[in-house]
Amino acid sequence: MIIRRATTEDFSQMLPIFREVIEGGDAYDFEETASDQDAFDYWFGKGVTSFVAVDDDPVSANQGKVLGFYKIIQNHRGRGSHVANASFMVSRETRGRGIGRKLGEDCLRQAKEMGFKAMQFNFVISTNEPAMKLWKSLGYKELCRLPGAFNHKKLGFVDAVIFFQEL
Amino acid sequence: MIIRRATTEDFSQMLPIFREVIEGGDAYDFEETASDQDAFDYWFGKGVTSFVAVDDDPVSANQGKVLGFYKIIQNHRGRGSHVANASFMVSRETRGRGIGRKLGEDCLRQAKEMGFKAMQFNFVISTNEPAMKLWKSLGYKELCRLPGAFNHKKLGFVDAVIFFQEL
Repeated sequence: MIIRRATTEDFSQMLPIFREVIEGGDAYDFEETASDQDAFDYWFGKGVTSFVAVDDDPVSANQGKVLGFYKIIQNHRGRGSHVANASFMVSRETRGRGIGRKLGEDCLRQAKEMGFKAMQFNFVISTNEPAMKLWKSLGYKELCRLPGAFNHKKLGFVDAVIFFQEL
Repeated sequence: MIIRRATTEDFSQMLPIFREVIEGGDAYDFEETASDQDAFDYWFGKGVTSFVAVDDDPVSANQGKVLGFYKIIQNHRGRGSHVANASFMVSRETRGRGIGRKLGEDCLRQAKEMGFKAMQFNFVISTNEPAMKLWKSLGYKELCRLPGAFNHKKLGFVDAVIFFQEL
Protein backbone atom coordinates (compact mmCIF):
# COMPACT_ATOMS: atom_id res chain seq x y z
CA MET A 1 0.00 0.00 0.00
CA ILE A 2 1.19 3.50 -0.74
CA ILE A 3 -0.21 6.79 0.51
CA ARG A 4 -0.01 9.72 -1.90
CA ARG A 5 -1.67 13.07 -2.64
CA ALA A 6 -5.17 12.53 -3.97
CA THR A 7 -6.08 13.95 -7.36
CA THR A 8 -9.53 14.62 -8.76
CA GLU A 9 -9.02 11.49 -10.87
CA ASP A 10 -9.26 9.47 -7.65
CA PHE A 11 -12.71 10.84 -6.90
CA SER A 12 -14.60 8.16 -8.85
CA GLN A 13 -13.06 5.54 -6.53
CA MET A 14 -13.51 7.69 -3.43
CA LEU A 15 -17.21 8.41 -3.96
CA PRO A 16 -18.50 4.83 -3.36
CA ILE A 17 -16.47 4.69 -0.12
CA PHE A 18 -17.90 8.08 0.91
CA ARG A 19 -21.43 6.76 0.17
CA GLU A 20 -20.78 3.58 2.16
CA VAL A 21 -19.49 5.51 5.19
CA ILE A 22 -22.32 8.07 5.11
CA GLU A 23 -24.91 5.33 4.73
CA GLY A 24 -23.76 3.97 8.11
CA GLY A 25 -24.94 7.16 9.83
CA ASP A 26 -22.58 6.43 12.71
CA ALA A 27 -19.43 8.43 11.97
CA TYR A 28 -20.07 11.56 9.85
CA ASP A 29 -22.51 14.46 10.05
CA PHE A 30 -23.38 14.07 6.33
CA GLU A 31 -26.80 12.62 5.64
CA GLU A 32 -27.57 10.27 2.76
CA THR A 33 -29.08 13.25 0.94
CA ALA A 34 -25.56 14.65 0.43
CA SER A 35 -24.89 15.17 -3.28
CA ASP A 36 -21.87 13.99 -5.26
CA GLN A 37 -20.87 17.66 -5.45
CA ASP A 38 -21.02 17.90 -1.63
CA ALA A 39 -18.68 14.92 -1.47
CA PHE A 40 -16.35 16.40 -4.09
CA ASP A 41 -16.20 19.76 -2.29
CA TYR A 42 -15.48 18.00 1.00
CA TRP A 43 -12.41 16.22 -0.39
CA PHE A 44 -11.26 18.65 -3.09
CA GLY A 45 -12.71 22.02 -2.10
CA LYS A 46 -10.81 25.25 -1.43
CA GLY A 47 -8.14 24.85 1.23
CA VAL A 48 -8.45 21.05 1.31
CA THR A 49 -5.43 18.73 0.91
CA SER A 50 -6.40 15.08 0.47
CA PHE A 51 -4.37 11.88 0.47
CA VAL A 52 -5.31 8.37 -0.69
CA ALA A 53 -4.11 4.93 0.34
CA VAL A 54 -3.77 2.83 -2.82
CA ASP A 55 -3.06 -0.87 -3.19
CA ASP A 56 0.32 -1.10 -4.97
CA ASP A 57 0.79 -4.87 -4.83
CA PRO A 58 1.92 -5.69 -8.39
CA VAL A 59 0.61 -9.26 -8.18
CA SER A 60 -2.78 -8.21 -6.78
CA ALA A 61 -5.93 -7.88 -8.84
CA ASN A 62 -6.54 -4.81 -6.70
CA GLN A 63 -3.45 -2.91 -7.82
CA GLY A 64 -4.36 0.77 -8.12
CA LYS A 65 -7.44 0.39 -5.96
CA VAL A 66 -8.22 3.16 -3.45
CA LEU A 67 -8.51 1.63 0.04
CA GLY A 68 -9.03 4.76 2.11
CA PHE A 69 -8.28 8.47 2.25
CA TYR A 70 -7.96 11.44 4.50
CA LYS A 71 -7.85 15.20 4.26
CA ILE A 72 -6.12 18.01 6.12
CA ILE A 73 -7.57 21.53 6.44
CA GLN A 74 -7.06 24.52 8.71
CA ASN A 75 -9.36 24.08 11.69
CA HIS A 76 -9.91 27.85 11.79
CA ARG A 77 -8.95 30.65 9.44
CA GLY A 78 -6.32 33.33 10.13
CA ARG A 79 -5.56 33.58 13.84
CA GLY A 80 -6.54 29.93 14.31
CA SER A 81 -4.91 28.58 11.15
CA HIS A 82 -1.91 27.02 12.91
CA VAL A 83 -4.15 24.18 14.12
CA ALA A 84 -5.08 21.53 11.58
CA ASN A 85 -8.16 19.37 11.30
CA ALA A 86 -8.44 16.04 9.50
CA SER A 87 -11.08 13.54 8.36
CA PHE A 88 -10.69 9.89 7.40
CA MET A 89 -12.60 7.27 5.47
CA VAL A 90 -11.70 3.62 4.86
CA SER A 91 -13.61 1.23 2.60
CA ARG A 92 -15.65 -1.33 4.48
CA GLU A 93 -13.98 -4.31 2.84
CA THR A 94 -10.50 -3.23 3.92
CA ARG A 95 -11.33 -2.35 7.54
CA GLY A 96 -9.43 -4.23 10.24
CA ARG A 97 -6.25 -4.32 8.14
CA GLY A 98 -4.62 -1.33 9.81
CA ILE A 99 -5.25 1.07 6.92
CA GLY A 100 -6.86 3.61 9.26
CA ARG A 101 -3.82 3.54 11.53
CA LYS A 102 -1.41 4.02 8.62
CA LEU A 103 -3.49 6.93 7.36
CA GLY A 104 -3.60 8.41 10.87
CA GLU A 105 0.17 8.19 11.22
CA ASP A 106 0.75 9.63 7.78
CA CYS A 107 -1.66 12.47 8.55
CA LEU A 108 0.31 13.53 11.63
CA ARG A 109 3.56 13.56 9.60
CA GLN A 110 1.99 15.50 6.74
CA ALA A 111 0.35 18.06 9.01
CA LYS A 112 3.66 18.69 10.73
CA GLU A 113 5.42 19.01 7.38
CA MET A 114 2.73 21.48 6.27
CA GLY A 115 3.72 23.63 9.23
CA PHE A 116 0.76 23.04 11.55
CA LYS A 117 1.45 23.20 15.29
CA ALA A 118 -1.37 20.92 16.41
CA MET A 119 -4.15 18.66 15.15
CA GLN A 120 -7.72 18.90 16.41
CA PHE A 121 -10.63 16.57 15.67
CA ASN A 122 -13.92 18.39 16.31
CA PHE A 123 -16.47 15.64 16.00
CA VAL A 124 -15.38 12.06 16.72
CA ILE A 125 -18.49 10.02 17.49
CA SER A 126 -18.17 8.56 20.99
CA THR A 127 -19.82 5.29 19.96
CA ASN A 128 -17.34 4.78 17.09
CA GLU A 129 -15.10 2.50 19.13
CA PRO A 130 -12.44 1.74 16.50
CA ALA A 131 -11.93 5.49 15.93
CA MET A 132 -11.93 6.32 19.66
CA LYS A 133 -9.34 3.61 20.31
CA LEU A 134 -7.19 4.49 17.30
CA TRP A 135 -6.92 8.21 18.04
CA LYS A 136 -5.99 7.57 21.66
CA SER A 137 -3.35 5.06 20.61
CA LEU A 138 -1.87 7.64 18.20
CA GLY A 139 -1.36 10.11 21.05
CA TYR A 140 -4.51 12.20 20.81
CA LYS A 141 -5.92 13.51 24.06
CA GLU A 142 -9.68 13.62 24.61
CA LEU A 143 -10.37 17.26 25.50
CA CYS A 144 -14.12 17.06 26.05
CA ARG A 145 -17.44 15.50 25.08
CA LEU A 146 -20.20 17.43 23.31
CA PRO A 147 -23.39 16.14 24.93
CA GLY A 148 -25.79 14.52 22.45
CA ALA A 149 -24.21 16.43 19.58
CA PHE A 150 -24.53 13.63 17.03
CA ASN A 151 -27.78 12.12 15.76
CA HIS A 152 -26.69 8.50 15.28
CA LYS A 153 -28.74 6.59 12.70
CA LYS A 154 -29.40 3.68 15.04
CA LEU A 155 -28.72 5.03 18.55
CA GLY A 156 -30.19 8.54 18.35
CA PHE A 157 -28.40 11.39 20.11
CA VAL A 158 -24.93 10.38 21.29
CA ASP A 159 -21.92 12.40 22.42
CA ALA A 160 -19.21 13.62 20.08
CA VAL A 161 -15.63 14.00 21.27
CA ILE A 162 -12.94 16.59 20.66
CA PHE A 163 -9.40 15.20 20.32
CA PHE A 164 -6.23 17.28 20.27
CA GLN A 165 -2.53 16.65 19.74
CA GLU A 166 0.44 18.99 19.49
CA LEU A 167 2.73 18.25 16.55
CA MET B 1 -32.90 49.46 21.58
CA ILE B 2 -34.63 46.83 19.49
CA ILE B 3 -33.24 43.57 18.17
CA ARG B 4 -34.53 42.45 14.78
CA ARG B 5 -33.56 40.24 11.84
CA ALA B 6 -30.66 41.79 9.94
CA THR B 7 -31.08 42.57 6.24
CA THR B 8 -28.37 43.15 3.67
CA GLU B 9 -29.24 46.86 3.95
CA ASP B 10 -27.74 46.79 7.45
CA PHE B 11 -24.39 45.60 6.12
CA SER B 12 -22.98 49.08 5.48
CA GLN B 13 -23.40 49.81 9.20
CA MET B 14 -22.15 46.37 10.26
CA LEU B 15 -18.93 46.46 8.23
CA PRO B 16 -17.16 49.22 10.23
CA ILE B 17 -17.97 47.35 13.46
CA PHE B 18 -16.63 44.12 11.91
CA ARG B 19 -13.45 45.98 10.91
CA GLU B 20 -13.07 47.44 14.39
CA VAL B 21 -13.46 44.05 16.09
CA ILE B 22 -11.10 42.26 13.67
CA GLU B 23 -8.51 45.00 14.03
CA GLY B 24 -8.31 44.16 17.75
CA GLY B 25 -6.97 40.68 16.93
CA ASP B 26 -8.17 39.46 20.31
CA ALA B 27 -11.56 37.89 19.69
CA TYR B 28 -11.99 36.53 16.13
CA ASP B 29 -9.95 34.27 13.87
CA PHE B 30 -10.31 36.74 10.96
CA GLU B 31 -7.18 38.66 10.08
CA GLU B 32 -7.18 42.27 8.91
CA THR B 33 -6.67 40.95 5.38
CA ALA B 34 -10.30 39.73 5.40
CA SER B 35 -12.20 41.27 2.47
CA ASP B 36 -15.57 43.01 2.61
CA GLN B 37 -16.95 39.98 0.78
CA ASP B 38 -15.57 37.69 3.53
CA ALA B 39 -17.41 39.85 6.07
CA PHE B 40 -20.60 39.81 4.01
CA ASP B 41 -20.49 36.02 3.60
CA TYR B 42 -19.88 35.59 7.32
CA TRP B 43 -23.06 37.52 8.26
CA PHE B 44 -25.28 36.87 5.22
CA GLY B 45 -23.93 33.69 3.63
CA LYS B 46 -25.82 30.47 3.01
CA GLY B 47 -27.41 29.04 6.15
CA VAL B 48 -26.70 32.18 8.20
CA THR B 49 -29.43 34.00 10.17
CA SER B 50 -28.29 37.37 11.53
CA PHE B 51 -29.87 39.81 13.97
CA VAL B 52 -29.01 43.45 14.70
CA ALA B 53 -29.44 45.61 17.77
CA VAL B 54 -30.59 49.06 16.63
CA ASP B 55 -31.00 52.25 18.62
CA ASP B 56 -34.72 53.05 18.51
CA ASP B 57 -34.73 56.05 20.83
CA PRO B 58 -36.90 58.60 18.94
CA VAL B 59 -35.24 61.57 20.62
CA SER B 60 -31.70 60.27 19.99
CA ALA B 61 -29.48 61.46 17.18
CA ASN B 62 -28.51 57.81 16.94
CA GLN B 63 -31.97 56.53 16.05
CA GLY B 64 -31.59 53.72 13.51
CA LYS B 65 -27.94 53.19 14.35
CA VAL B 66 -26.66 49.58 14.48
CA LEU B 67 -25.08 48.96 17.91
CA GLY B 68 -24.22 45.29 17.58
CA PHE B 69 -25.26 42.06 15.90
CA TYR B 70 -25.12 38.32 16.10
CA LYS B 71 -25.69 35.33 13.89
CA ILE B 72 -26.99 31.80 14.33
CA ILE B 73 -25.88 28.87 12.16
CA GLN B 74 -25.92 25.08 12.43
CA ASN B 75 -22.73 24.04 14.18
CA HIS B 76 -22.57 20.93 11.99
CA ARG B 77 -24.52 19.80 8.97
CA GLY B 78 -27.04 16.93 8.89
CA ARG B 79 -26.56 14.59 11.85
CA GLY B 80 -25.10 17.47 13.90
CA SER B 81 -27.54 20.15 12.75
CA HIS B 82 -29.62 20.16 15.96
CA VAL B 83 -26.81 22.09 17.71
CA ALA B 84 -26.51 25.79 16.92
CA ASN B 85 -23.49 28.04 16.88
CA ALA B 86 -23.48 31.82 17.25
CA SER B 87 -21.13 34.79 16.87
CA PHE B 88 -21.45 38.30 18.29
CA MET B 89 -20.01 41.74 17.61
CA VAL B 90 -20.69 45.00 19.45
CA SER B 91 -19.40 48.41 18.40
CA ARG B 92 -16.59 49.70 20.59
CA GLU B 93 -18.40 52.91 21.51
CA THR B 94 -21.41 51.06 22.90
CA ARG B 95 -19.53 48.41 24.93
CA GLY B 96 -20.22 48.29 28.64
CA ARG B 97 -23.89 49.19 28.13
CA GLY B 98 -25.17 45.63 28.31
CA ILE B 99 -25.79 45.29 24.56
CA GLY B 100 -23.77 42.06 24.43
CA ARG B 101 -25.86 40.58 27.21
CA LYS B 102 -29.13 41.52 25.51
CA LEU B 103 -27.90 40.03 22.24
CA GLY B 104 -26.79 36.88 24.09
CA GLU B 105 -30.18 36.48 25.74
CA ASP B 106 -32.02 37.12 22.49
CA CYS B 107 -29.80 34.59 20.73
CA LEU B 108 -30.74 31.82 23.16
CA ARG B 109 -34.45 32.58 22.66
CA GLN B 110 -34.14 32.71 18.87
CA ALA B 111 -32.09 29.51 18.66
CA LYS B 112 -34.70 27.69 20.72
CA GLU B 113 -37.48 29.09 18.55
CA MET B 114 -35.58 27.94 15.45
CA GLY B 115 -35.75 24.42 16.88
CA PHE B 116 -32.16 23.95 18.00
CA LYS B 117 -31.60 21.67 20.99
CA ALA B 118 -28.34 23.24 22.17
CA MET B 119 -25.90 26.09 21.54
CA GLN B 120 -22.17 25.55 21.19
CA PHE B 121 -19.44 28.20 20.95
CA ASN B 122 -16.34 26.68 19.35
CA PHE B 123 -13.75 29.38 19.79
CA VAL B 124 -14.16 31.84 22.66
CA ILE B 125 -10.79 33.43 23.35
CA SER B 126 -9.78 32.67 26.95
CA THR B 127 -8.24 36.13 27.42
CA ASN B 128 -11.46 37.87 26.32
CA GLU B 129 -12.65 38.41 29.88
CA PRO B 130 -15.94 40.22 29.15
CA ALA B 131 -16.99 37.38 26.83
CA MET B 132 -15.84 34.63 29.22
CA LYS B 133 -17.77 36.23 32.06
CA LEU B 134 -20.88 36.95 30.00
CA TRP B 135 -21.28 33.43 28.60
CA LYS B 136 -20.89 31.87 32.04
CA SER B 137 -23.46 34.27 33.49
CA LEU B 138 -25.90 33.30 30.71
CA GLY B 139 -25.68 29.62 31.70
CA TYR B 140 -23.03 28.35 29.32
CA LYS B 141 -20.76 25.62 30.63
CA GLU B 142 -17.07 25.62 29.73
CA LEU B 143 -16.51 22.18 28.19
CA CYS B 144 -12.78 22.44 27.48
CA ARG B 145 -9.83 24.60 26.49
CA LEU B 146 -8.02 24.27 23.17
CA PRO B 147 -4.36 24.78 24.07
CA GLY B 148 -2.76 27.71 22.26
CA ALA B 149 -5.39 27.55 19.53
CA PHE B 150 -5.65 31.32 19.01
CA ASN B 151 -2.87 33.60 17.80
CA HIS B 152 -3.67 36.76 19.78
CA LYS B 153 -2.42 39.96 18.17
CA LYS B 154 -0.71 41.15 21.36
CA LEU B 155 -0.33 38.04 23.53
CA GLY B 156 0.62 35.40 20.96
CA PHE B 157 -0.77 31.88 21.34
CA VAL B 158 -3.54 31.71 23.94
CA ASP B 159 -6.19 29.10 24.69
CA ALA B 160 -9.62 29.09 23.12
CA VAL B 161 -12.63 27.75 25.01
CA ILE B 162 -15.63 25.67 24.00
CA PHE B 163 -18.91 26.64 25.67
CA PHE B 164 -22.13 24.63 25.55
CA GLN B 165 -25.70 25.04 26.71
CA GLU B 166 -28.81 22.95 26.21
CA LEU B 167 -31.86 24.92 25.12
